[in-house]
Amino acid sequence: MKPVEIAILGFGTVGSGAYRILNEHAKAIARRAACPIAVKRILVRDASRERAVPTPPGVLTESFEEILADPDIRIVVEALGGEEPALGYTLAALEAGKDVVTANKLALALHGRRIFETARAAGRRIAFEGAVAGGIPVIRALREGLTANNIERITGILNGTTNFILSAMTDRGMEYQDALREAQSLGYAEADPSADVEGFDAAYKLAILASLGFEGYVDPRRIPRKGISTVTAQDIALADKFGYRIKLLAGAERADGSLHLSVTPSLVPKGHPLANVNGAYNAVTIEGDSVGQLMLYGKGAGDLPTGSAVVSDIIELVRFPDLSESEIIWQDREMELSDSTARPSEYYVRLLVKDLPGVLGQIATMLGVHGISIATVTQELDNAGRATLLIFTHECERSSVEAAAGTLRTMPFVLSIANILPLWAGTRG
Amino acid sequence: MKPVEIAILGFGTVGSGAYRILNEHAKAIARRAACPIAVKRILVRDASRERAVPTPPGVLTESFEEILADPDIRIVVEALGGEEPALGYTLAALEAGKDVVTANKLALALHGRRIFETARAAGRRIAFEGAVAGGIPVIRALREGLTANNIERITGILNGTTNFILSAMTDRGMEYQDALREAQSLGYAEADPSADVEGFDAAYKLAILASLGFEGYVDPRRIPRKGISTVTAQDIALADKFGYRIKLLAGAERADGSLHLSVTPSLVPKGHPLANVNGAYNAVTIEGDSVGQLMLYGKGAGDLPTGSAVVSDIIELVRFPDLSESEIIWQDREMELSDSTARPSEYYVRLLVKDLPGVLGQIATMLGVHGISIATVTQELDNAGRATLLIFTHECERSSVEAAAGTLRTMPFVLSIANILPLWAGTRG
Repeated sequence: MKPVEIAILGFGTVGSGAYRILNEHAKAIARRAACPIAVKRILVRDASRERAVPTPPGVLTESFEEILADPDIRIVVEALGGEEPALGYTLAALEAGKDVVTANKLALALHGRRIFETARAAGRRIAFEGAVAGGIPVIRALREGLTANNIERITGILNGTTNFILSAMTDRGMEYQDALREAQSLGYAEADPSADVEGFDAAYKLAILASLGFEGYVDPRRIPRKGISTVTAQDIALADKFGYRIKLLAGAERADGSLHLSVTPSLVPKGHPLANVNGAYNAVTIEGDSVGQLMLYGKGAGDLPTGSAVVSDIIELVRFPDLSESEIIWQDREMELSDSTARPSEYYVRLLVKDLPGVLGQIATMLGVHGISIATVTQELDNAGRATLLIFTHECERSSVEAAAGTLRTMPFVLSIANILPLWAGTRG
Repeated sequence: MKPVEIAILGFGTVGSGAYRILNEHAKAIARRAACPIAVKRILVRDASRERAVPTPPGVLTESFEEILADPDIRIVVEALGGEEPALGYTLAALEAGKDVVTANKLALALHGRRIFETARAAGRRIAFEGAVAGGIPVIRALREGLTANNIERITGILNGTTNFILSAMTDRGMEYQDALREAQSLGYAEADPSADVEGFDAAYKLAILASLGFEGYVDPRRIPRKGISTVTAQDIALADKFGYRIKLLAGAERADGSLHLSVTPSLVPKGHPLANVNGAYNAVTIEGDSVGQLMLYGKGAGDLPTGSAVVSDIIELVRFPDLSESEIIWQDREMELSDSTARPSEYYVRLLVKDLPGVLGQIATMLGVHGISIATVTQELDNAGRATLLIFTHECERSSVEAAAGTLRTMPFVLSIANILPLWAGTRG
């Protein structure tokens, strides 16, 4: 049987991972795809450079045009990442009549509508299991496994770098800066870590999941983000004491007719599996009105995990070459995002105050004026006449918390508002 | 557009759940299936009986033959459960040219080969997402999401009844009999609970997952089972003290060229998400050579969760009516099951011994003779001159443990072997 020929754009982590899997599992993959799959070309910047993963002579090429013009190449795997030239190549490949498999969350989140419109116009398909949460088949779960549901809430631990840092802070009591430096020295964090630690990466992935789950385009630039740099070892220790872990959660929730999105460090009850997603692992919980709460957990990055997702997409495109475009469910309409940055939530509020009589009463009274009801409050004195005040609120509006924070800043005995973090609202079932 | 017409066999938990979802989400489902779906007939034993879920006149029927003979009914949903008449109806529907969606783990596990051969011969399709782990899309994950992997290990918490009982014992210190009675009074356990508590139900589901994951037929009757009735509150408390939860795990592992299967209570490290799967929730971990370890978590039973899986199958059959039978990946060959009941494992061994000098030394020496190396041993005295001896072994063969247990029974100071349980071998990543 004549193999289906494909090209891979980029030979970094994802491209080489997919190539290795296609080679090492060639026989099983041919059986599962009902046809052998051959990598005809791999696009690289320098075809003469020695590679860790060897390829037969002639496979590496520096010319995208050669790939584009080759009628035998039926599928193009976009493993370049970033905005350009990845986006242009993707569109050109679709227009040239090739199906595209992509692991590029950024291009997909920012330009998903254009990519899907191009695919539709060309009668081609675009598959992107590898774009979110590495090897976890969450795209398939949303597109196929949960089609009997109205999705109500999606919550993800979608960024391995921040999860590594928070896990190191939790397990070893490290401060943020030390954990970040360790992550950088291990290659888990970039020299400029802002794409990860400020939540941009998680926001791109959340936009893709929310677009699928809520059937409308979500602009990732409109998702409110709060990174993990404000989280201290003390926050983590205090949260632990009250039964929580702090995780960077990317959340989308449909309520009151609009969509609430956010990326923010949040407190998750320790007894929930989501709280036990550590290190480089990712997880996504999905709540549907029929299925209840699901969670999918696995490795969120890396050559073989992401390669696993990319190759599963290739196999599906080869096995079912004639699926109609009805499977393209990325909708044209843009979702109405809620004006508020988040749904009403319970909050964790940590303050540093002067240890004076009456402080707690004045703060509690002020919170009540802002409509915030206190669930528990704890005071810990230090030796310098200061007290750490830890308040857990009942459910309240984010805007109320912000207004209250503004008032707190004017109170003479409040030394600092150390942190305000929401509690995860996912049902515990 | 003319709707695709379907029939549902059985109107119990699963059948009524699927029907409700099809009705309540009709508009969204028509969009996702690219065609409306109409339930034309529901097979019941007594069509005149009042139902909690109402249906239009004429939908309920007592005649399977009527459904079989109706050329407009394209899909039959088998929601009867049990062996017969479910199996006969499934085969007849396939032979009559209808696709079948089934949630019947028992019929599928015992007669999967015959069902799939019949589907193949008839050129029809069989979908069964609802047969294992309720609403969790684990069948899709194995069939589509992980096709780039050689599966190495599958571990499931697949039975809600036993997980409820073990969770009640863990959370509230209950003994097994009390927790079982509570589960029975709440309707979570049958009057005769043996299908659940002795592991038969989990073995059926494991056989289906293993057949998919390892691409060969697995006979559920050949899976060694150990139920949860031997687990005591003391086992749970001791496991907890050493950092473990006790779960009924259904496990399949490929090693040394053959497949090792078992259903047995096992110790799972508390920090792993699998240890935090509580109550009626199910979870499946899958380890693949590319993807690493995945876990899927969700509600394992109930009308709407299982209905969610069943309806997702219906939608897929409607949306993609022309898929070739190449998607049928249930293989003909029967898997070689290992003779040993389980892979080498670490073990938890709890003994009740007389509190005499030298006992620990004699036991340790005897274990060494059987090739069992001790990781930790702890002794707790009671007031009656007895001691509970808790031994964690290093990895050893099950046969060695059994031989050692035989010797222990002959030692005069050993009052009883309270329990021997394996530690879960799933990687912690």
